[in-house]
Amino acid sequence: MPGETAGTSPPRGFPDSEFEGRLERAQALMVQDGLAALLLTTEVELRYFSGFLTPFWQSPTRPWFLVVPVRGKPVAVIPEIGAEAMARTWVDDIRTWSSPHPSDDGVTLLTAALSDHVGAGGRIGLAMARETHLRMPLADFERVRQELPAAEFTDATAILRRLRRIKSEREIAKIAHVCALVSDAFAAAPQLFFEGQSEVEAFRAFKMECLRQGVDDVPYLVGGAGPGGYGDIISPPSERALAAGDVLILDTGSVYDGYYCDFDRNFAFGQADDAVRRAYDVAYRATEAGLLTAQPGATCADLFRAMQAVLEAGGALGNDVGRLGHGLGSQLTEWPSHTDWDETTLEAGMVLTLEPGLSFAPGRVMVHEENIVIREAGPELLTRRAPPELPIIG
Amino acid sequence: MPGETAGTSPPRGFPDSEFEGRLERAQALMVQDGLAALLLTTEVELRYFSGFLTPFWQSPTRPWFLVVPVRGKPVAVIPEIGAEAMARTWVDDIRTWSSPHPSDDGVTLLTAALSDHVGAGGRIGLAMARETHLRMPLADFERVRQELPAAEFTDATAILRRLRRIKSEREIAKIAHVCALVSDAFAAAPQLFFEGQSEVEAFRAFKMECLRQGVDDVPYLVGGAGPGGYGDIISPPSERALAAGDVLILDTGSVYDGYYCDFDRNFAFGQADDAVRRAYDVAYRATEAGLLTAQPGATCADLFRAMQAVLEAGGALGNDVGRLGHGLGSQLTEWPSHTDWDETTLEAGMVLTLEPGLSFAPGRVMVHEENIVIREAGPELLTRRAPPELPIIG
Repeated sequence: MPGETAGTSPPRGFPDSEFEGRLERAQALMVQDGLAALLLTTEVELRYFSGFLTPFWQSPTRPWFLVVPVRGKPVAVIPEIGAEAMARTWVDDIRTWSSPHPSDDGVTLLTAALSDHVGAGGRIGLAMARETHLRMPLADFERVRQELPAAEFTDATAILRRLRRIKSEREIAKIAHVCALVSDAFAAAPQLFFEGQSEVEAFRAFKMECLRQGVDDVPYLVGGAGPGGYGDIISPPSERALAAGDVLILDTGSVYDGYYCDFDRNFAFGQADDAVRRAYDVAYRATEAGLLTAQPGATCADLFRAMQAVLEAGGALGNDVGRLGHGLGSQLTEWPSHTDWDETTLEAGMVLTLEPGLSFAPGRVMVHEENIVIREAGPELLTRRAPPELPIIG
Repeated sequence: MPGETAGTSPPRGFPDSEFEGRLERAQALMVQDGLAALLLTTEVELRYFSGFLTPFWQSPTRPWFLVVPVRGKPVAVIPEIGAEAMARTWVDDIRTWSSPHPSDDGVTLLTAALSDHVGAGGRIGLAMARETHLRMPLADFERVRQELPAAEFTDATAILRRLRRIKSEREIAKIAHVCALVSDAFAAAPQLFFEGQSEVEAFRAFKMECLRQGVDDVPYLVGGAGPGGYGDIISPPSERALAAGDVLILDTGSVYDGYYCDFDRNFAFGQADDAVRRAYDVAYRATEAGLLTAQPGATCADLFRAMQAVLEAGGALGNDVGRLGHGLGSQLTEWPSHTDWDETTLEAGMVLTLEPGLSFAPGRVMVHEENIVIREAGPELLTRRAPPELPIIG
């Protein structure tokens, strides 16, 4: 049954065919847009085309570049420290320099790599639009532009978005695996959390349980607790002790082989008052409405409206999150967004969160979240469905 | 004794006076450089001036802005989802919008906040130079520039670097604490690691031990093992089983309240061959040379030369890391760099790593790392010093 057991771990990495397919699809879109090359600078962009996976991105010191030409394989322009790790990927053309460098941190090498593939007046695509950034010093980007005065630098966000929107079965298997592991970790909640425990200790216990279950890392774990409800869902835990009547939420993005889950669970301690139980029920039913709507051909706006109708009928005072779910994959949050303005059509292979939330009293919010993959036959839950009533611990 | 015991946890957060001091020093430098405001976009920049601490930065969806005017307190221009968390900081002026937004993801609000503080022709500083990036969509930055045609956007990296170079005693206490916790975790190595264990399992066991000791998170854990030595130090662990004759390195950036340690330890299994024991000894003595040199008034280049002389005398074939240590604090790696070109003068209050490494055979490297704070009287170890001989497990 989907979303029920973690089972065996999917193999790490991908066969070269996965990257060949990504490159082929990218190059077809580049031809349509008249692009000679893509210039990529972020962790997820480099990993998508090369398979290069390292926590070394935590260090902001060194820039990393991948040039994807419209014909031929990607070219890596990277610090020497990464040469051996990059050589284990399918990338052949690896150009390195000793970084950090006082005056030329890869600029000359990058310019040369672009020149090799971009003729005079050629168009170079990079991510410039919503939900992206350029991970290199702005001054160095200006230098690259000046070194290539005939080239046109243009936004290629739409290409990257379109490529990553549909996940392969290998990608889905990794996401399903981490969702199953974290579902098991949440199932251990009655053994992990107790009254008198500080939020910091509760979160630490949960993080260790996720690792014990087999996730590689828990880069994202937020939430909090408060009497009758919590106030926001992006904070780290406090030193406050959990007490009877508290509602606790934990929201985690854990990873397996570079792929994320992103979901939360709510727990009450000792007892739950009527207001919070009603809010839980509203969020639960909003998720159900999302699940009924998440068919191929529906849009993200349809998903938003289906969930929002339940939230409003349930007396929601508002929602500060700005959307009711989003894409999920090699980032904690990806395009699209379930908002009234996102008309992205759902297609088989899209992995999404459903994340209805409501303010049900001043300073008290309730948020639910599940992860699904869209199949031809409808949505498939990757997370084990939250219980229909707010679980009570103790 | 410094670096010996974790002791009690330093309090989380900072009193407002910490931020007042940072702001005052920033504004004095801004006056010198004729800057009307700083525009800040990254996690560490926002946290430095506001105290805003959240793992929510894992989500790349939403941009976050802080405007630091040359007079008055910082202005936060942030997504609504962060309003409640930002309200708990010392920042008063918090301007929010519902993000993600299809066409104006904070651009109008940010432009207005800058306009409030920057007269016609005013200069706006932002990080543009080495080891920085701009965390907002490039297209949106261009729009902000166009909306403020009279303003001059200029590089302010030097100001940010100068401010963050010297740590306060409160900052040092947090770094010392995480160094002590992870020193305790490494001391448990003989109980954590064993022949037949996969690298993945060994790393997972270490990560759980760090959490058990009390770190908040282990965002960075790399390394690997191989017979007689390892080949690179930026890779995630493999599924390969540890075997007699292997040398294992783990290099971790763990955090407490947003402050990092960054150090590694080496272990041999069963036995160690002469080459690797010699390499260990060379790296150990290079660190000793670094400790002798790390006095106020010496430079990073002095540190580099002192360590490099030992490495070369010890037969180093080279070093792909590009430097022999770096700054440390609210990022895993900060300025300065111990290289032959970095003439930064060591001052009391700087927190640094000493990280000598050498290739001692083709595909075999040995890296050591310790964390220190520079005091008037000389360096103080924050990590518990690695043993002088390669420890053997089993």
